[in-house]
Amino acid sequence: MKALVYNGPGRRSWTDHSDPEIIAPTDAIVRIDAVTICGTDLHILKGDVPEVKPGRALGHEAVGTIVRAGDAVTIVRPGDRVLVSCISACGRCEYCRRGAYGQCLGGGGWTLGHLVDGVQAEFARVPFADTSTYPLPASVSDESALLLADIIPTSYEIGVRNGRVGPGDVVVIVGAGPIGLAAVTAARLYSPASIVVIDKETVRLEAAEAAGADRTALPDQAEATVWEVGGGLGADVAIEAVGVPETFELCAELVRPGGRIANIGVHGKPATLHLERLWARDVTITTGLVDTWSTPMLLRMLAAGRLNTERLITHRFGLQEMDEAYDVFAHPQDSGALKVALFRE
Amino acid sequence: MKALVYNGPGRRSWTDHSDPEIIAPTDAIVRIDAVTICGTDLHILKGDVPEVKPGRALGHEAVGTIVRAGDAVTIVRPGDRVLVSCISACGRCEYCRRGAYGQCLGGGGWTLGHLVDGVQAEFARVPFADTSTYPLPASVSDESALLLADIIPTSYEIGVRNGRVGPGDVVVIVGAGPIGLAAVTAARLYSPASIVVIDKETVRLEAAEAAGADRTALPDQAEATVWEVGGGLGADVAIEAVGVPETFELCAELVRPGGRIANIGVHGKPATLHLERLWARDVTITTGLVDTWSTPMLLRMLAAGRLNTERLITHRFGLQEMDEAYDVFAHPQDSGALKVALFRE
Repeated sequence: MKALVYNGPGRRSWTDHSDPEIIAPTDAIVRIDAVTICGTDLHILKGDVPEVKPGRALGHEAVGTIVRAGDAVTIVRPGDRVLVSCISACGRCEYCRRGAYGQCLGGGGWTLGHLVDGVQAEFARVPFADTSTYPLPASVSDESALLLADIIPTSYEIGVRNGRVGPGDVVVIVGAGPIGLAAVTAARLYSPASIVVIDKETVRLEAAEAAGADRTALPDQAEATVWEVGGGLGADVAIEAVGVPETFELCAELVRPGGRIANIGVHGKPATLHLERLWARDVTITTGLVDTWSTPMLLRMLAAGRLNTERLITHRFGLQEMDEAYDVFAHPQDSGALKVALFRE
Repeated sequence: MKALVYNGPGRRSWTDHSDPEIIAPTDAIVRIDAVTICGTDLHILKGDVPEVKPGRALGHEAVGTIVRAGDAVTIVRPGDRVLVSCISACGRCEYCRRGAYGQCLGGGGWTLGHLVDGVQAEFARVPFADTSTYPLPASVSDESALLLADIIPTSYEIGVRNGRVGPGDVVVIVGAGPIGLAAVTAARLYSPASIVVIDKETVRLEAAEAAGADRTALPDQAEATVWEVGGGLGADVAIEAVGVPETFELCAELVRPGGRIANIGVHGKPATLHLERLWARDVTITTGLVDTWSTPMLLRMLAAGRLNTERLITHRFGLQEMDEAYDVFAHPQDSGALKVALFRE
């Protein structure tokens, strides 16, 4: 079969790769029907994620059809159309038993396209299939379900829930890429007073307005805008959706006393934490890898038409056009790409 | 009257100072019966708290007797023996109405010995007396009540409650000064599995054992000790009780996935936040200035003999020995001092 293979920093190819096999009785083999590319895949290609070794098939967000299931798989069956989540869960370890599947100690967590071969391929082995895939209702399209493999639960759990967004809050979201835009949609569920989105690209600020932001601003206007909206105090919640020190530090400047900073971004470098200013300000900072405990609920919301996920997927390709899709996704300034989706032909 | 006056960085004197007057009808004048010195006072003397101007009487932890009360003061009356809390509260602003008195927008918060003259004096003006002092039951001594002016509620609210210490948790407390030792006592209230205390002074580790620590370690043994106690995962809660970058960063190294870092320390410099390691680890970091919402409850616990606060006050002086008390408190390596208490003669 074909897969998108990481060949070391800066090098990838859509190439022949060994077919996936059932290794453990909890595995399933999934035929990939729709798949997307994540900013994290670009981090891997930069060499920022050293535990990903050359030869690894990338990808952790897909919709597919179960074609084979190990003897211990009882919930999903061959022929089922399923969401393949970015997080696999053994379901048995201390962290899984608390719903912290992202921190699974039993061989799950973020493994697909990271520690085991991923889903940017014609077929993939999904470990712990019963607790790592979600059967899809017929009313949910492959394309919209794809957003629930990672970005919607991530923005909801790690941005909105960790940041404890609540009614009447002033929320600032720094970064209007796919995760930041998904966070606008997720924050809306809690009726904030105002959502302000900051990005350095005007075209992304327009996308944020379309997604439901009340105000948008370029970084140099961030403080003035948030101060105006926040009554001179700052934001109740600042959601970091980029993953560089500057944007994290901007969040720490924009948050009011008693506020929350919810970091979503994947970081490759440390940031400066201005404790000399923050120590007395009752600030809460959270980090996190999505657990996907919210995925079933979000699927129900999607089926009910309660999630505004339109416009997040800007470009569509056939699965065999993987190289072109990567090029488009990696250069959003030129392409205007948010999420790209690839479909089995 | 006499007061301990800040004369600019590095300079203080126990000297004549104008008598306090009722300025607002919510003020009370308190005769100081017992007072203590805080590490924060030493920060001020170093020049780390630039909003404190020369001429300011320092001190924010006292027990005294109301001698005069403004027309709007109705709960405490002249003759009442009261705890004077480090936090004053207007009781009317948005933050006060949420119990976030430390962030009071109406002229309260940490003002005593900071923005207005403090309680290291023979008399002091206490703003918002009804919502900033606490009548003391006869069974609670001046000396033990003194610890409730700041360090016990601070360690409880900002360390234990912000860190969400719970039954079975592995708790590490970095710093075994008065705040760190108070945090041992406060953490015990939630039945953790184990409390590990880290300090670079052996004598302070002995004090931590006396206060109820299960394990103690010097900084170079911190990681090995916490790993052993924490089953190879680290601590559920790390409480920072020093206020320098190194101890904050140590807390971030010692905490397990899903853990909490509760910063209590007063910081003068930024710290490095290793987001490249922490982004995926579900860590929560909190900062805070005590609100003192817990003070009435802690007073009840103290009266009931449920708080182990013995041994925290190591040295006692007459009020006129303020200079000597400062010298002893500022050099704990020589004096072995934890908290010092000064009493009206």
